[in-house]
Formats: sequence, structure tokens, C-alpha cells
Amino acid sequence: MKELLLLTSLLLVSLLPWVTSDNPCCSYPCQNNGICLTGKQPGSYSCDCANLDFSGRHCEIPSFLKRIKLFLRPSSETIHNWLVSPSLKWIWDIINSVDVLHNLLMKRIYLLRSNVVDSPPLYETVHDYPTIGATTNFTLYARTLPPVPLGCPTPMGTKGPKELPSVELLAKKFFTRTKFRPDPMGSSVLMTFFAQHFTHMFFKTDYKKGPGHSWSGHGVDVTSLYGRNVEEENLLRSGKDGKLKMQVISGEDYPMFSKDVPIEVRYPPNHPENLKFALGHPFFGLMPGLFLYETIWMREHNRVCDVLKAEHPDWDDERLFQTGKLVVLGETIKIVIEDYVQHLANYNIQIKFKPTVLFGESFQYQNKINAEFNHLYHWHPLMPDEFNISGTIYPMKDFMFHSELVLKYGTAAFTESLSRQRAGHMSHHNHGPSTLNVLKETVLHGRILRFQPLNNYRKRFNLDPYTSFEDLTGEKEMAAELEKLYGDVDAVEFYVGILLERRRLKNLFGSTVVEIGGPFSVKGLMANPICSKHYWKPSTFGGDVAFDIVRTATLEKLFCGNIDGPCPLVSLRVPDFEDGDVDEHTNYAFKKYPDELYGKNSRNHKYSSATI
Amino acid sequence: MKELLLLTSLLLVSLLPWVTSDNPCCSYPCQNNGICLTGKQPGSYSCDCANLDFSGRHCEIPSFLKRIKLFLRPSSETIHNWLVSPSLKWIWDIINSVDVLHNLLMKRIYLLRSNVVDSPPLYETVHDYPTIGATTNFTLYARTLPPVPLGCPTPMGTKGPKELPSVELLAKKFFTRTKFRPDPMGSSVLMTFFAQHFTHMFFKTDYKKGPGHSWSGHGVDVTSLYGRNVEEENLLRSGKDGKLKMQVISGEDYPMFSKDVPIEVRYPPNHPENLKFALGHPFFGLMPGLFLYETIWMREHNRVCDVLKAEHPDWDDERLFQTGKLVVLGETIKIVIEDYVQHLANYNIQIKFKPTVLFGESFQYQNKINAEFNHLYHWHPLMPDEFNISGTIYPMKDFMFHSELVLKYGTAAFTESLSRQRAGHMSHHNHGPSTLNVLKETVLHGRILRFQPLNNYRKRFNLDPYTSFEDLTGEKEMAAELEKLYGDVDAVEFYVGILLERRRLKNLFGSTVVEIGGPFSVKGLMANPICSKHYWKPSTFGGDVAFDIVRTATLEKLFCGNIDGPCPLVSLRVPDFEDGDVDEHTNYAFKKYPDELYGKNSRNHKYSSATI
Repeated sequence: MKELLLLTSLLLVSLLPWVTSDNPCCSYPCQNNGICLTGKQPGSYSCDCANLDFSGRHCEIPSFLKRIKLFLRPSSETIHNWLVSPSLKWIWDIINSVDVLHNLLMKRIYLLRSNVVDSPPLYETVHDYPTIGATTNFTLYARTLPPVPLGCPTPMGTKGPKELPSVELLAKKFFTRTKFRPDPMGSSVLMTFFAQHFTHMFFKTDYKKGPGHSWSGHGVDVTSLYGRNVEEENLLRSGKDGKLKMQVISGEDYPMFSKDVPIEVRYPPNHPENLKFALGHPFFGLMPGLFLYETIWMREHNRVCDVLKAEHPDWDDERLFQTGKLVVLGETIKIVIEDYVQHLANYNIQIKFKPTVLFGESFQYQNKINAEFNHLYHWHPLMPDEFNISGTIYPMKDFMFHSELVLKYGTAAFTESLSRQRAGHMSHHNHGPSTLNVLKETVLHGRILRFQPLNNYRKRFNLDPYTSFEDLTGEKEMAAELEKLYGDVDAVEFYVGILLERRRLKNLFGSTVVEIGGPFSVKGLMANPICSKHYWKPSTFGGDVAFDIVRTATLEKLFCGNIDGPCPLVSLRVPDFEDGDVDEHTNYAFKKYPDELYGKNSRNHKYSSATI
Repeated sequence: MKELLLLTSLLLVSLLPWVTSDNPCCSYPCQNNGICLTGKQPGSYSCDCANLDFSGRHCEIPSFLKRIKLFLRPSSETIHNWLVSPSLKWIWDIINSVDVLHNLLMKRIYLLRSNVVDSPPLYETVHDYPTIGATTNFTLYARTLPPVPLGCPTPMGTKGPKELPSVELLAKKFFTRTKFRPDPMGSSVLMTFFAQHFTHMFFKTDYKKGPGHSWSGHGVDVTSLYGRNVEEENLLRSGKDGKLKMQVISGEDYPMFSKDVPIEVRYPPNHPENLKFALGHPFFGLMPGLFLYETIWMREHNRVCDVLKAEHPDWDDERLFQTGKLVVLGETIKIVIEDYVQHLANYNIQIKFKPTVLFGESFQYQNKINAEFNHLYHWHPLMPDEFNISGTIYPMKDFMFHSELVLKYGTAAFTESLSRQRAGHMSHHNHGPSTLNVLKETVLHGRILRFQPLNNYRKRFNLDPYTSFEDLTGEKEMAAELEKLYGDVDAVEFYVGILLERRRLKNLFGSTVVEIGGPFSVKGLMANPICSKHYWKPSTFGGDVAFDIVRTATLEKLFCGNIDGPCPLVSLRVPDFEDGDVDEHTNYAFKKYPDELYGKNSRNHKYSSATI
């Protein structure tokens, strides 16, 4: 009798986690992307391992082939180090110069990256389980991992505190900028605005409906240039030769005033009418940097239309416009991949836009923006607190909504200034006063959406979960603070963790941003319809001449081709940047930071001491 | 000098087609799906052969590999004959019973069929050239071939008459039913209504906007059951246990009256309130056959919800509903493929729904309904002029909009009657009075959309173009009439040709319907998101029990599981149908047509003599 009692208690104890929690899925028992499903009996569950390379009660047993693959596969960190290592550069130089090798490798990169993203997606943001709406409902973000189940012992599942630390406390302890911390890879604020201009094409949260709702087209659709729909497009079009309406101010083409083109744009109340411009994206009056990109791209559209008209004198306005739009879309993807992504990745391999290597591969030409991608791309620390335009310092309050600054200095000088000013480091203690609220909101939204913890996402994206707080931050001080607040490294929140994790060697970010953001980026770019076999041909773009514009587009050509006179510096990295001058311990501080980067005639009192 | 003059005239003559026509693309000079693009000089053009297996000025030269493939590839007709031949049946029986062989073949069939469809599509219905909207604008049908260029010498390009024959004349000469011509494969009107119920889920022309506009979800999305959007869905839902609202009448579950569920449904003016039902598709009150399917599927949804609730007592209404919808969607595709498509194809190979064979293949899980597919699927000759329900004959006027007939006879007797009555032959001289206007409208819409001629579509879908009018019709009389009207077989219109072409051996249709409709069907069915790797697993459908419902669904089980009492005959083919009793010459007439097929107590005076 005694033995029976003991056995029963032992059994009870071994069952404890399931007995005490209503929902056994709260502890994420299913491994390797197995899906947890509660069963008929309270506390029972099963793991669905279908279509995975794993089996077993918790999908923990790899298949024979998978076991070999896992054994042979280098870690994500190792691959990264190969890709950035100066000592291996000679190998990459060979690969870069041998087309057949480079094509093979680009194909592998495209596929390895994009295969990590579920396409079509299984989850959206209003249900905790698969729905058909995840694919068909475009007014919702997709999501990669379902939310933390409702009614779990803790907000993060079974680990961590019963109550998460307040966002105010987090902001104060970890995120508030006291001193501007420059990006350790020398990114310029031209890069900052590139990121902002590009990504807000598809990161479009419908805040009125909630943080899971979206008014996005879910991909690179150039709507930020042409408007959200045909009605807005028609407002922005001139109706002649396919061109967009523009006006000449100080000898340069600029967007129209919104009083003349009644498209919805958001400016502060009582903003002067002649400082409000009609733009394809309602929020792009926010920053002169966005206004600059918008202006340059609109000029490019009109320039392309001229080229197309010369090639096709018989084409009407509509065909010139539609084809011009396709060319601009193609150029956008080309520049994003070869200038912007190349800059962010900082790999020795030249990242190229080669749609043809994916023809015939198992690759989905469709895309849904995932809520996690949106959160991860909240890079507000990139934004400095003030701007140096040709030697004059504009604090943020005098810069925001002041599109007219671009007109005042002209696009050339403005571009040059943005190319010379350093962006901030996307990391902790680097949210300026104007973006701190966005940070708080983002963390809160992550809670409303019940994002699973950072470590679950790391596992989902083939990264090792962090084993300790020090492993996460790469130092001791913040690690100790974090531990006090979260108790368990498996309970650290997604976005909080992203901002606090240690930086990767020779990169702007920590590994989570690179290894989660990379797949979503590659997928979103290459899944564009124009990259598919039927679109990707000269006739789609109006013939060889325009197809070549797409195939040879660069950021520099984009600006130089649309700015009269000598071409300014157009660079996502500040000039004279020297790599390697990083504090190896914290991985984020620069030892030197030359003043002259801010233009010859100014000395920036604040930034000049921006060394930690 | 004389020689020079002669040479010049010769040159001029050889250039004549391009000189006399403004647009050289009017003569479709580019072969093998090459894309014709006009050039800078008036009358000049080029063919874009990119990403094709052909090169040369007109994409006429196959690559070496393609040449071999073309040499080895059996004709579409040969493959068809292999697939239907009774003498080869033993081979197919082996393939059907050996899973690994059958899987391999199903994969080939899925891929061969769906690869013919451009996905994502390049063209939509408001532009004559590629636009990004072809993929992103869901309010337009896609199209496979661009329209006949504007300003061509003839409406069909360069061939055929300057003015197309009036639709009135065509209707009178070729399409008006004088005697009901039964489907030569013995299809029942249960098949007719299956086709109508299923396809109107995605063939949804927005007539107010024009024949190229659509309000479709562009795929199998079960919207005809659950409504077009969340608002309609919520109206149709009971809010309890995931179920749809239904009411008990005469001991059976039926849809609610529209007075009780205020969803938009179209009935004639002054239609009695208690004969108007609330259905997911506004037009499905039109035919009691549609109402029958709607009723049975709604019952199935509720039945599935009961099964899910038993498996998951903890699930709320929302999860039961969403998962029930996924199960019903899965069952729909399974039944469409294994019952309906199998019936239409009539192949010796068992056509199965096996999503797993496409995992890892180059296959797009996205779909756009093409305008051509919509036209081709206008199968109104299937509709008889009257219906025999349990021995009582209802002429069309007493049948249309009379959903209450289903209630009067009960779903069992109604199903049995529809299973026993013969559908019409989808061919010439077989549009009854109630559908003749649809025919005229369809031909007119094809002209508004400027569809290229039938033969261009045959080439596009790897079929030999018809070489003569007799080759097209398979007889002399109509061929002669057609020739008088069109002059050139290359100028026969798409839909006109489809109705007039000779029937294929052991099939309901001519080769164009099979070889163009087949690819669009297979693509649309297998491209459904639930067929993709991430969806197609037990947990998506609520576990093994419900996944098995999907995987074992049949039309018979669908009806029998939702009709109390003995199961009626549920068949897409009338009972006692004997194959082979077809006039071998005209290929459409039956030699015998037993009266008793119309139920024991009735003799159908009209149909009994329906032998041509």
C-alpha cells in the first residue's frame, strides 16, 4: 500500500507541469517546429510532426538524413564568420568573379534564406491557430509562430515572471539614449532614410484596428511612390507621357503641393499649405530624408518614361506609365539588394539580384508581411537627434515635417549631407527622445500580440537559444539587470532581446536580426512577381533599353541621373570609415570618430565625443 | 534601273503585311509564346524569346533539348487515347494499385497541367500588355493571351472578316436547341449542378464594371458557402459550437430564410419571403440544385463541428468554426478532384488528391482566375429544359428560383431525381431558351475583351491548330456554314469554336475544353494554400480524426452523411449508362436512351426521342 502511494505521488509529480497548467502547450513541448495540439483529456496534448524531418512524441528524433545534415551543417555563427572574414576574402573574390560559381551560391543563399519563411503562411494575428485567412486576408499581418496560449502560468508560457516589467522601466534602464551611439559599421543617415523609405512601403500597421492589422500590400509594390490604389495613382499622375505630376522649384523638379493634388498626407495641424507636399505615402512628409527619396524616385519615374517614349513613340500615356512603374519596381529591388542589403549584410560575397537562378526551383512568388518582421525592423536607434545639413545643425524638432529643407539646400547638397552624417547604432541605450515612445509602443504591441519569447524565435530560425543573460548581452551589467527582471533567459521578450543582444562581428546587428530579418527580406524581395519567369524578360519592361536600366540600377546612378550638375556623394556609409575600430568587448563602441565627417564648416559638439 | 525598281517592288511586296497594317503584331508573328513588341520605326517589331526554349527572330528555332523533347513527345490526342483506351486499361489498373507508380504519375499530371498556366499571371483584362496589377489587382480577371491589338485590319488580327457575324445569327445557326441533346457520357444533372455550384465560387464577373472585372477570391475559397467576407460570414454563423445557422423544416436542416438572416440574396421581385433563403452566394437561390448542394454542405459543416467539438471539448465557437471551414475546404477539393474531375476526365487512371507529391516541386500555391477559363467554363448546354423530380416534370420556369422544391420532396428524393436525369451535351445546337442569352452575352464579352482566335489558344496550350473548318467540327455541314461566316479557320472565335469543335473520344468535350480547362482546373485546385506543406497536416484540421474526414471524403459520403434515412442514389452519371453507344461520325448522338432513367412513374415525352 505504501509503495502504491509512493508510486502514485511520483507519477503525480512527473505529471506536475501538465497538471498545474491548464494548457500543456504553454511549455512549448514540441521541438523542431512540431505543432502542439491539446487533446480530449484536460492536460493532454500531441505534437504534429507531419512534413518535418523529425518524429517522436515531441518531434525530437531527427530522420537519418536530417541527422547527417545536422552533423555536417556549420553553425549560423560559423557561416557568418566565413562570410565576413578578411582572411577568406580571396576565396570570395574568386567566387564573385566566376559567374557560374556566384550563381550557384546566390541560388543557395536565396533558397536557404527564403525556405525558412512559411509561404503561404499558416498563422495570422487574430487567431492562435491555422486559418485560411492567414493566406487570404490581406488586412492582417501573418505571423511565424502562434501566440503564447491564453491562460498560461506566465505571460511567456511557463517561464519568467508572472508580470512582465513595465515598459517605462525597460525604457529607462535599457533603451533611453544618454549619448548618441554611432553605428559601428559607419552607416550614414542616407542609409537610415533608405531603410525608412523602403520598409514603410510594406510595414503599414492599421493602428486604429490594432497592432496585428495592416493596410499593406505585403511586398515591394512601390505604393509609397504611386499611392495605395488606382484613385491615388490617378491623382499623382500627370496624364501625359506616363509621367507623374511634378513642379519646378529653384530649378529642380519636386512633388506637387497637396493643395494642388488632393491626396491624403499627414502633416501637423496648421502646417503651412506651401510646405505640404502630395506624396504616395501619407506619412512621408514626416522626414525631409523621406521627401528626398520620394523626390528622386519620382524624377526617376519621369526620366524612365522619357526613355520609354523614345523607344516607343506609339505608346500612350497609360502604357508608358504602367511600364515605367514596372521599371521603377525592378530598379527598387535591384538597388535594395545590391546597395542596401549588401551594406547591411557586409559579406565578402557580392549579393546580387539574379532572378533567373530561381527559375524552376521550389520557390513561392508570393509574400505576406509577418508581424515579427515588422517588430524586428523597428530600427529607430538609427535616427540621430539632430541633422547637419551643409554645416547647419537642425535639432529633430526643426527637421521633422520640414520637407522644405530639401528645397532650401537643393537635392545635391542635401544628399551629400545625409551621406556624410553618421547613423545611430541599432542597439540598447540609443533611442532618442523622438523615438522612445515608439519603442514603448512596440514592446507593448508585442505583448498584445502575445509574441513567444526571443529564444523560441531563435530556435524557429535555426539559431541556438541563448543559454544565459550574459550569453545574450555579451556583458555582465545589463545581463544582471535583465536577469532581475525576467528571471529566465527563456522568458526574454522578442523585441527587448533584439535590442539587447550582442552585436555580430562586422555587422550592424546581433544575430537574431540578421538571421530572422534576412530570410524575410530575401523572401520579400525575390518573391516579387516581376522576378518570376513570365515577367522577368525585356518585353515586360518595354524592351532591352529599359530592361538594362533595371539590370544596371545602382543607388548612385539613381541620384546622379536625377540631380542636375555635379553628382554629390551618395553613400550608405560615411566616407573615410575605417572598419575594425570597435571595442572588442562590448562590440559597439568606436574608438575614434573624426569631426570632419560632418562637413568642413561645422563642428558637431555632441557627436564629436560620441565614443563610449 | 529596271532591276532596281523590280527589286524595290519585290521588297515592298514582301513587307506588305507590315506596311498595310499599322501594328505588325496583328499577324501574331512570334511563335512558341514569344512576345511581340512594336519597335521605334512604324511597322517594326521584335519577338521576346527570353526564358523560352526557342530562339530566332520569331522564336521559331527550338533549342537542341527542346527539339528532342518535341520529337519524343506524343501528341495531346495520343496521350488522351492512351488514357481512355479500354485495351490499355490493364496497365492503368496496375498503376492505380501501385502507390509509388501512381504517386509519380499524379505528380507528372499535376505539374504538366499546371505548368501550362502562367503563375503569377502577366496579363489582366484592362491592359493589352504586362502590368504588375495582373498579379496584385484581384478585382480583375487575369488573362493568358493579351488581346488582339487595337487597330488591326480585322477583329481577329489580320485574318477573317472585317466584321464578325452577329451573335443573333450565330445563335440561330449553331447554338439554339431544337431537340435536347443528352451528354454522350451519361452525366446526370446532379453533375450539372455540381459544376454550377462549384465554379460559381470563383467565376464571379462584376458585370456592372465590365466583363473583365471580377469580385472573385480567385480560387477554391468556399465563399459560396460562408459568404464573401467576415461580415456575411458572421451573419450566417450561429455563434455556437462553430456552427452555421440552420432551421428545421419537415424534420430536415435547411438554410435560414433571408428575412431572418439579412444577407444579400437575389430573388425575383415580389418573391414570397418564406421562399427566400439566406445563402453564402447571392445567386444561389436561382436553382434548386444549387440550393440542394448549399444545404448539404452547410449540414456537413455543422456535422464536422460536432466531430471537432468531441475531439476538442475546450475549443470555443471561433476555433471550431475556423477549423470546420478548413475541413470543409479540404473536403471540397478532395471531392472535386476524385469525383467530379475524375468524371469529367473519364481517364483510366484514378485521379487522386495527393498534395504531398508536390512538396518541394516548382509549383506556385497561388491562383488567379483567367478570363479565358471563365468563358470556356460556360457550360450552359448541360442544363435541360425541364426537370423530373420524383416523376413530376417541372419546366424551367417552374424550377428556377423555387428552392422550396427541395423542401417539398426532401433532400433524399431530390438528390435521387437529379442523379437519374440526364444532363445536356456541352456542344452546338443545345442552348435551351433560358440560357441562349447567356451564350450571346458570352460571345459578345469575348469580343469586348478582344480574345485572340481559337487557334492561337490551341497553340498556346500545346494543341495543334485546326487546319480547316472540317477539322474543327468533324463534319461538313456546320463546317461549310462556318467557313462562309469566318472565311479562315484561324479567325474562328474562342468560345464559338469551343462549342462547335468535335468531341473527343470517350469525353464530354472537345480537346480545347479538356486541354485548356484541365490546366486551369488542376492549377486552381492544387494551388490552394491548404495543399502546401505547412498547411497539409493533421493539426491544421484539428487532428487526425478531422484530417481523415478530408482525406476520405467522397460525394456519396457527403450526401449520405447529411441525409437521414436510407441514402439516395448520389451519382454524377445516370444509372445503367452504357458507354460506346455514340454515333462514331458526329460523335455526339446516342443510339438509345432508355425512358426508365427518368424514374419509374414517368415517361418523358421529349427526352425519350432525344436521338439525333
